[in-house]
Amino acid sequence: MIPDTIQKLAKLLSSLPGIGPRQALRLAFYLARLGKQEQKQFQEAVTTLSHLKECGECFAISEHSGPLCAICSDAKRSSKLIAIVEKDTDLITLEKSKKFTGRYFILGDLKKAGMLDTLHKTRLAHLRQRVKENGLLEEIIIALSPTTTGDLNAAMLAKELNGLAKKITRLGRGIPTGGEIEFADEETLNDAMRHRE
Amino acid sequence: MIPDTIQKLAKLLSSLPGIGPRQALRLAFYLARLGKQEQKQFQEAVTTLSHLKECGECFAISEHSGPLCAICSDAKRSSKLIAIVEKDTDLITLEKSKKFTGRYFILGDLKKAGMLDTLHKTRLAHLRQRVKENGLLEEIIIALSPTTTGDLNAAMLAKELNGLAKKITRLGRGIPTGGEIEFADEETLNDAMRHRE
Repeated sequence: MIPDTIQKLAKLLSSLPGIGPRQALRLAFYLARLGKQEQKQFQEAVTTLSHLKECGECFAISEHSGPLCAICSDAKRSSKLIAIVEKDTDLITLEKSKKFTGRYFILGDLKKAGMLDTLHKTRLAHLRQRVKENGLLEEIIIALSPTTTGDLNAAMLAKELNGLAKKITRLGRGIPTGGEIEFADEETLNDAMRHRE
Repeated sequence: MIPDTIQKLAKLLSSLPGIGPRQALRLAFYLARLGKQEQKQFQEAVTTLSHLKECGECFAISEHSGPLCAICSDAKRSSKLIAIVEKDTDLITLEKSKKFTGRYFILGDLKKAGMLDTLHKTRLAHLRQRVKENGLLEEIIIALSPTTTGDLNAAMLAKELNGLAKKITRLGRGIPTGGEIEFADEETLNDAMRHRE
């Protein structure tokens, strides 16, 4: 008794990350009840996605003209300092801090801990080739989350990246600014002690 | 530094119920990285929503040919027994039980507790007109959730519907099937006692 059109859209929506079948159905009905004008906005927003491309160096989603993204085309940003992140949204979050003057490299989601799939391997091969052509990097920052999985992946990546930069680092660990010592877990406190400044 | 196209889509997505700005951004990037074919599926699924209409009697989203939905066009379903629900998804859930032989009436989300907006009023006026033309209903079931807000809204609706049906009822309350007495709260136990059968 669910209209086919709704059923079909709900199925597509439930394929998106973090959206379950129940929310997908609710969203499909919500979209169905929007005005024609609003539905058109959604439709057009999805259509224009096809104008986006991937940056030829960092693999970020880009709408910058030319083969590189705005960051990789920016001569003021050091091409010798690279932060490796998993996702576009990680880049956005780091970039918001406005402190990083280097460039990025989007590896892609590491879905299986400690394992690289074809996509990751292709991108890393591209990075190696660039280093081969342009010389050793100053530093690669492996910007993965400091979780158990992230640590495992970072160790694997450090091996893969061996020889590409003078220094391979990770993001600092400790008590988050604004956080209370009282509520920090043991592991975080150990890290904070070890990385005291 | 977020591409405009992504920004725009993320903003639209965050206007959907249950989707926050962070998830919206993640979804926008996810959609941007889908293949052209998959993007097209989304676009087409949204486009075909325009073929849907609202049933002229129960206001459910319908793709049935003619002015009424499949349920309201079904002569085997009693037109004298009507269940009032807030949302299309409530109809779907009740209909899944396959026990209800009457018809539905979609009132629309009651966003402000105890208050009807123009949409609700227009639909209720339509129902009153139908009763005026076709005679008194046997029963109206006010199928709102048994929450505090739902109770408040049901009391208000009962007043609004006064004189339209011989009986105005609500869904039964008690311990859900499969639920344990041990974990039922006091209010539910009281309801279960009062409605013992």
